Parts: sequence; structure tokens; C-alpha cells
Amino acid sequence: MTKNEALFHYILRLGDDSLVLGQRLSEWCGHGPILEEDIAITNISLDLIGQATNLLNYGGIVENKGRDGDKLAFLRLEKEYCNLLLVEQLNGDFGDTMLRQFLFDAYRKPLFELLQLSTDKQLAAIAEKSLKETKYHLKHSSEWVIRLGDGTEESHLRVQNSLTNLWRYTDELFFTDDVEKILVDTGLIPDLSQLKEVWTTNVTAVFEQATLSIPSNNWQFEGGRKGRHSEHMGYLLAELQYMQRAYPNMEW
Amino acid sequence: MTKNEALFHYILRLGDDSLVLGQRLSEWCGHGPILEEDIAITNISLDLIGQATNLLNYGGIVENKGRDGDKLAFLRLEKEYCNLLLVEQLNGDFGDTMLRQFLFDAYRKPLFELLQLSTDKQLAAIAEKSLKETKYHLKHSSEWVIRLGDGTEESHLRVQNSLTNLWRYTDELFFTDDVEKILVDTGLIPDLSQLKEVWTTNVTAVFEQATLSIPSNNWQFEGGRKGRHSEHMGYLLAELQYMQRAYPNMEW
Repeated sequence: MTKNEALFHYILRLGDDSLVLGQRLSEWCGHGPILEEDIAITNISLDLIGQATNLLNYGGIVENKGRDGDKLAFLRLEKEYCNLLLVEQLNGDFGDTMLRQFLFDAYRKPLFELLQLSTDKQLAAIAEKSLKETKYHLKHSSEWVIRLGDGTEESHLRVQNSLTNLWRYTDELFFTDDVEKILVDTGLIPDLSQLKEVWTTNVTAVFEQATLSIPSNNWQFEGGRKGRHSEHMGYLLAELQYMQRAYPNMEW
Repeated sequence: MTKNEALFHYILRLGDDSLVLGQRLSEWCGHGPILEEDIAITNISLDLIGQATNLLNYGGIVENKGRDGDKLAFLRLEKEYCNLLLVEQLNGDFGDTMLRQFLFDAYRKPLFELLQLSTDKQLAAIAEKSLKETKYHLKHSSEWVIRLGDGTEESHLRVQNSLTNLWRYTDELFFTDDVEKILVDTGLIPDLSQLKEVWTTNVTAVFEQATLSIPSNNWQFEGGRKGRHSEHMGYLLAELQYMQRAYPNMEW
């Protein structure tokens, strides 16, 4: 794999995470538990779709095979998407959504902090812009995790259940392979090997405040980074891609 | 409109009703309240998809523009589908699904009884075959409506609620326009003007046994026959069409 191919794949992973979670969150639009949260979730969704646009457009340039951001977003097959399994999971209830968001934001914040140091100027710029948004997202989602966890008996039980269910998708946040190794070895991105420790420390602190317990001995899933997705992914793509599939080359 | 065009449109309506309800019912597969019902609903779904295949394949022959059943089923745009609004409604709970099924089966049984007298031999044959299946479906759905309506307080309240919600889609069962008029006037199909009365008598009798009340003064919706669908239709089509859209010209 060349350095350029590795960069393309790395950008695609970042872009697909934003795209798929943005699409999932958009399902909340008009269904939030209170108006303010409805607007908050929709804004987070739009931030993520904006990140996906920047990343996939740049990915298309790096790839240099005539695919722009739209083509990459809408016209790949399921096995060509390399997002985390975590972000494609169903929204569930509000607690499930916020817990998923928290696990993801707590991973993306330190990741973008490192990626803004990339020697690839465009990737560094996208990371810097995305970091600003991600800090807000993390503040929002961690506050909700604490409020729900350290709330009523009912809210505690439910969000503990969310954590128990979603924890199995967290090892994959730190999936690593040649793609990342090549970028680190060639000095294009900083060493990311401390990321899991940083993340674990941060989420543990929030879960303590939230009086939530990290499940022990939880089987871990992976496959998303390699294009092996859960059953939910096909339905998500059917909705995501429908307009471009039904009206090829449409533009707004 | 020529007689042939009218026949094409009429077959398309019948085919789309079967196709869309078959697709909806397929969502129950693996989710039925008990195994026997899971299998029953899935079998009804398969019957309906079989009817859709017969009808749309024949529709393609009548149209004679190179579209076969698959092309008609999978590659039209939303506004080109002319199914009833009733059949595209969400499954809801088991009672909603059975009530919708009952309203539909009670309409299709007398309709197919008349259409098997069509002077168009192919349409008559499809109606005759579909009638056999529809009789079973109607027996099944009417028994459930009675069991739920005349059941526990909870089941009564819930299925009464289903009836109140779905009743607004029943006037459209008897939608009529030039398409039907041309076929009747040219003697291709029998006069259908008694259909509503037959249907009303039959459903009223079942609702009496079920101790359910037909809502009075209920606003009636229509639009499906003219391609104006409810919000649910786009999502249904996205799933229905995805494979053909993503893999054009695929065959099993």
C-alpha cells in the first residue's frame, strides 16, 4: 500500500464515521424528547454531515479516480463503507443515543487534537475545524450521560443498560492496521498509541460521576473498518443512498 | 385513454396493492408474537408478493414498452406507484396489522370474485388464483379482529384504536375513475358499483361480533391511486428498491 492509498483509506474511515452517525442522528429530527434537544441533536447531525462532506471531498482528491464527496458518500456498496460498528447501531431511546454519542465524542476529541498536528495541511485543517465542533458535542453528551446516570432510578437503569449494550463496540474505536502504521511511520500523522488510554481515563471519570459501571468480561465486536457491518447498515444505506440511486447524478 | 392503457393502469393498481402490502408484512418476519403467527404473516406476505409478480408481469405485457414485472416493481419513482394509502401504512402493533389486513382482505375477496369473470382471460385467471389465497387471508384476519376486539379490555381498546386510525383510508378502496369506467363500459370487467355495499355489510358484521365501533364523522384520505403517497412510502420504497438500484439488472 502506498502512502497515498493509506491516506485515502484513513480519510475514508474518518468520513464514514461522520457520515453514518450524522445520518443516524438525523432520524431524531422532529422526534426529540424536548424541542431544545431536538434542535441540539439535529445540529450535531449537521456538524457530522459537514465533517463528512469535507473529509469525503478531500478523500476524492487524494484518491484521484474521479470520485467526489457525493459519489463516495452515496454510491459505494455496503462492504466498501469502513465506519465503526458503533455509529451504525440503532438510535434506541434518548439514553442509548446519548451514550453512543458520548463514547464516540470522547474518542474523536483526542483523535482530532492529534490529527490537527498532521503534516498533511488539508487533513490538519479539517481536524482543527472538526475539533471545535467535537468539543461541544462531548460537553453535551457527557452532561447527559451524567444527568441520566445519576438521575432517577428509571433513568439510571436505562442508561446503564445502554452502556452494557454499547460497550462491546468500543474496542473497535482503537482498531489499527497498516493504514495507520504507514501514516505514522511516514510522519504524516502523530503516533496514536496513547489514544485508548486517554479515552479510557476520560470515559471512566464521567461514568464515575454518572454512577455507571463499565461491564466486565464483555465480548467485543469488530468488522466495520473492514467493511463487515451489522444488519442495521443495509437499511441505513437504503435510506441514505435512495435519492442518488433513484435519480442518478441529481444535484440540489 | 385507450382500453389497453386502462387495462394496464388497472392491473398496476392491483399489483401495487399486493406488492406494497406484501413488502410491509415481510417486516414482521421473525418478529411475530408467536411462532405460528410469524409463519402465517410471512406466508400471507409471500402470497401477496406472488400476486404482485403475476400482476406486474402481465402489466408489462399489456403495456408493451419493454418493462417486465421486476422493472415495474423496482424501478418506478414514488409518484408512479398507485397503491392504496391503506397498504403503505406502518405495521404498528399486531392489532393494527390484522385490522389493516382485514379491511383489505374484505375488499379484495368480492373484488377478485368479480374480476375472475373478466373477459380478459389472463386477468380472470390471476383473479381466480388470488381469490383462493384471499379467502384464507380473510378468514385469518377476521378471526383475529374478533378475538382481539372481543378479548380482554386491553386488546379491545387497542384494536378499537386501530380501527379508528385506519378507517380514514377505507373510502379509497372504492376510488373510481375513467380507468375502471372504460373497462366496465367495454365489458372487460363486470360492474363493480356494488362492491362498497358488499364490503360494508361484511365488515360491519365482523365488527359487531368483535364489539368494535366504526368511527363516525371520520375524515377520509385519498391520493394513493393518483401517486400521492404518505410519508411512509418513500422509506418503504428505499428498502424495496435498494437491491435493484444498487446492483442494476441483478438477477437471483
